[in-house]
Amino acid sequence: MGKKVVIVGAVALGPKVACRLRRLDPEAEILMIDRDDCISYGGCGIPYYVGGDVSEIKELESTVFHVRRDCSFFDIYKHLTVRTRCEATAIDRRAKTVSVTDLNTGAKEEIPYDTLVLGLGSTPFVPPVPGADLPGVHVVANLHHAQAIKEMVQKGKVSSAVVVGGGAIGLEMAEALSDLWGVETTVVEMMDTILPQAVGTEIAKVVQGEMRENGITVLTGDRVEAVIGDPENGVTAIRTANAGEIPCELVIFGAGARANTQLARDAGLAVGRFGGILVDERMRTSDPNIYAGGDCVEIKNLVSGETFNLPLGSMANRQGRVIGTNVAGGHAKFPGAVGTFCLKMFEIGVATAGLTMRQAKLAGFDPAYALIMGTDHAHFYPTQKFVFLKLIADRTTRRVLGIEAVGANGDAVKARVDAVAALIVRGCTVDEIGNLEVGYAPPFASAMDILNAVGNTLENVLDGYNHPMGMEEFIEGFGQEKFRVLDVRSEDNAAPYKEKFGDRWINIPQDQLDTRINEIPKDEPLVCFCNTGLRSFECQRYLDSKGFKTLCNVQGGHGFLSKLDPEFLN
Amino acid sequence: MGKKVVIVGAVALGPKVACRLRRLDPEAEILMIDRDDCISYGGCGIPYYVGGDVSEIKELESTVFHVRRDCSFFDIYKHLTVRTRCEATAIDRRAKTVSVTDLNTGAKEEIPYDTLVLGLGSTPFVPPVPGADLPGVHVVANLHHAQAIKEMVQKGKVSSAVVVGGGAIGLEMAEALSDLWGVETTVVEMMDTILPQAVGTEIAKVVQGEMRENGITVLTGDRVEAVIGDPENGVTAIRTANAGEIPCELVIFGAGARANTQLARDAGLAVGRFGGILVDERMRTSDPNIYAGGDCVEIKNLVSGETFNLPLGSMANRQGRVIGTNVAGGHAKFPGAVGTFCLKMFEIGVATAGLTMRQAKLAGFDPAYALIMGTDHAHFYPTQKFVFLKLIADRTTRRVLGIEAVGANGDAVKARVDAVAALIVRGCTVDEIGNLEVGYAPPFASAMDILNAVGNTLENVLDGYNHPMGMEEFIEGFGQEKFRVLDVRSEDNAAPYKEKFGDRWINIPQDQLDTRINEIPKDEPLVCFCNTGLRSFECQRYLDSKGFKTLCNVQGGHGFLSKLDPEFLN
Repeated sequence: MGKKVVIVGAVALGPKVACRLRRLDPEAEILMIDRDDCISYGGCGIPYYVGGDVSEIKELESTVFHVRRDCSFFDIYKHLTVRTRCEATAIDRRAKTVSVTDLNTGAKEEIPYDTLVLGLGSTPFVPPVPGADLPGVHVVANLHHAQAIKEMVQKGKVSSAVVVGGGAIGLEMAEALSDLWGVETTVVEMMDTILPQAVGTEIAKVVQGEMRENGITVLTGDRVEAVIGDPENGVTAIRTANAGEIPCELVIFGAGARANTQLARDAGLAVGRFGGILVDERMRTSDPNIYAGGDCVEIKNLVSGETFNLPLGSMANRQGRVIGTNVAGGHAKFPGAVGTFCLKMFEIGVATAGLTMRQAKLAGFDPAYALIMGTDHAHFYPTQKFVFLKLIADRTTRRVLGIEAVGANGDAVKARVDAVAALIVRGCTVDEIGNLEVGYAPPFASAMDILNAVGNTLENVLDGYNHPMGMEEFIEGFGQEKFRVLDVRSEDNAAPYKEKFGDRWINIPQDQLDTRINEIPKDEPLVCFCNTGLRSFECQRYLDSKGFKTLCNVQGGHGFLSKLDPEFLN
Repeated sequence: MGKKVVIVGAVALGPKVACRLRRLDPEAEILMIDRDDCISYGGCGIPYYVGGDVSEIKELESTVFHVRRDCSFFDIYKHLTVRTRCEATAIDRRAKTVSVTDLNTGAKEEIPYDTLVLGLGSTPFVPPVPGADLPGVHVVANLHHAQAIKEMVQKGKVSSAVVVGGGAIGLEMAEALSDLWGVETTVVEMMDTILPQAVGTEIAKVVQGEMRENGITVLTGDRVEAVIGDPENGVTAIRTANAGEIPCELVIFGAGARANTQLARDAGLAVGRFGGILVDERMRTSDPNIYAGGDCVEIKNLVSGETFNLPLGSMANRQGRVIGTNVAGGHAKFPGAVGTFCLKMFEIGVATAGLTMRQAKLAGFDPAYALIMGTDHAHFYPTQKFVFLKLIADRTTRRVLGIEAVGANGDAVKARVDAVAALIVRGCTVDEIGNLEVGYAPPFASAMDILNAVGNTLENVLDGYNHPMGMEEFIEGFGQEKFRVLDVRSEDNAAPYKEKFGDRWINIPQDQLDTRINEIPKDEPLVCFCNTGLRSFECQRYLDSKGFKTLCNVQGGHGFLSKLDPEFLN
């Protein structure tokens, strides 16, 4: 007789555990249960189903070979038993049994286990506002909601929609509604910028700019107070604290999710500060006969050392394999994660790993950053596209804490972040990024890749050669007349700025610095400015050596300014 | 008075050293010399200039801001002195002087240095065959050759060309000639497959297939014996050992390059077994007052521990920065490289890092590999493209030794290799690749990224769960009737194979394995086959557990077979 293994939850983690375990242990008696009848689906594909990139919902439930992953699939292909509409209601850890209820018949039963695996998932958070239960209000939780949303949109019932929450799921849904269906879409985010868990405010604003250019209204620092409508006709509007009433027929709450842990809590398993089940490196809960993984657990953040929730399908899959190996008697580890993240938003891609500046400060680091504008491919190669790259490190140890990137070629943007993420996991210094070996050929990179460039820039910042000023500080400070600008670009480039800002915007092209050095004001706050931050750094260094000690250098230069504040000149 | 620094060579390494040094040390007296009058150009862009992606040669000599990097540029922008057409002929290490000759006037002079930097570059290897000096024979060495080649082609003088050498430069030139200009192009490579330094034979054959599909003739295992023609009319043909005479008007030798080290050798500096100047981690030669970098040095291969030549613009740039920092009194290191490489070839991209199987064996490892076919993006996402990914590791230590990838989206292919390369530098095991954290969202990756998949596959190989058979072994062995095939794909998929190969090609779809298990021959060599190698592995495991002990599993499945041997069915 094989080992009895019961797996609760059959969406992402569960199936991975079960299939891995079966491949290692042909004898194990594996039972996987789920309270839903949709199982083993690619929930991350829901926005693309709604948006039309994925035409039929069954594609999200099918293998690469177009076989639907239903109970019979798991039986025939994987030699596993799966029961759907079957809910686990209690665990008796001493007796090693799970109480389950058949949701179709109401029948109850105690199922014995040798090893129990919890893949309980998470539940989207819906703020307790009036009207949150009206028809037309949805979450992005499973294929039922996905289908309901797509039906409403397909039938032309939605001319306006509001998405509550500016995290990944909220943004992906907003893009889906707006892009194919032309739904007038508003995103409401409580924090000052979107994607607050993933990126700092600067990169977030680039994404917001892209959304606005594509017709999405982004309301940040705002909060939903009520959903308006009636049970018969459904939603007619939403009311927010700042924007008032926004008419809409569809509301999607994408404001984060809460780990499903009631079953675990009731059984006395340890739960962490973010409400997820605590697990060790082998994905065991506080009961060594019970494993857990996926959205319902907290894992270690390998940068901060604290635990965090990271509800991603990729986590569930990798953790599932680790659990499968361990349940089969192997010794696999999941040491934690650095929170690598990526997102497509219309024509741009954004990717990040590690901590943002804010998160780094909260975790007790003394972070500094560099931000550069560059190109993904050689600057002379026709397919080259812009990238903004931000690297964050601790001033004292020079340890890399995070990286954020956004640009027009998502694969190339993500590539840079993935390479650095691999090193952040191990702990690496800025200097290693400056000298990182990435593949080079003009169709794919510059000889000095943007990763090397941002590493070198941050080295120069930490070493005191580069006196950087962040773009947000620049925009605010210039508005408050805290300094003047020394624009070292060509006269053509600088002309509109000189015209608007008069003697607050000094233009001396880099090749004239030497001969016109007397025109540069000494001993007053002056900020060097070019197209990317590269030439302005060189000029700052040159002027430093000539006794100008009060110069700063704007990170990202005109390229970044025009993305972050397209109205700067107006 | 600042430190006297003389830099010999002003193409890639030299300018980087000079500019970095200037930014750190405003006082240094920097003199950079070059025997050519073209300096600071992107030599790696030459194929793209010839092929038309880069329309004017000056783009290769210009900054992002379209300023031409000539002597005056270095003077005005960088505050450096550059002398062109000025050749270094000898070094007197005791006196610390360099003898230079002005190639315009013939004037000779001794220039004193405190620190000398050698960026001597390399010289393309031209085999000593008759006719190698005829008009119409070129190398890819500098912009003069580039211009001459493009002129010949542009003027319609070339209907056929032969490129000698199937390395990166040879292939890029072949693509350039064939793609835009429609020149009938033949590549002659001495080894059995192209790119022998970069990839194993399997991945190389995928690239060869792409070239053939785009009209290029690839002759491997062949050697040029003579270039035929006369001094007046130039080249008319080339003769190879196997293919005989191939008519052509243009011959390009792209058969590797030799480090330029005469100056260093004459001065008694240590030179390595591959003919490059030996340097330490700080890029110092055996004389601590003399640094060297770029194509003329040997660096440490961080996988094999031996030294090797890696003539890439990216190496020169990063080494140049290290030298600049060190000459300025800093302490920067260049520990070595793992040989990361990438190449675009028509519609595919290929990328590699570390050692090939052959190189790994030569270096004393006991390597195993896994090869998978997968998609770069989620399989249900419309932009997904194929990728073949090969991971190589040592059986004993499980250390990752190399990775090779080829696929239709070059940025996505390179991304996977760059992430692994970052870890190979540090030394990492297969298990870390299986659990590597890369960004996940359906437009950019699968929940289980292909990197994780290839890591897991190799784990299964090393752990004895997966009994792999390489595709070349499969093709050869099946041809020699060494085994029969168990095709677990659908009947439709298998039909043409069954028809052609009769009872040597058994088809039992995976979902019928259980019920038709009696049809499967026991105790004879049998090879499991599916579309990618994934289902065949699962079936092999299942049948293992049922007592079938003689099964292997073809790596890469039908997807790889059809790329590697499109004629298999014919």
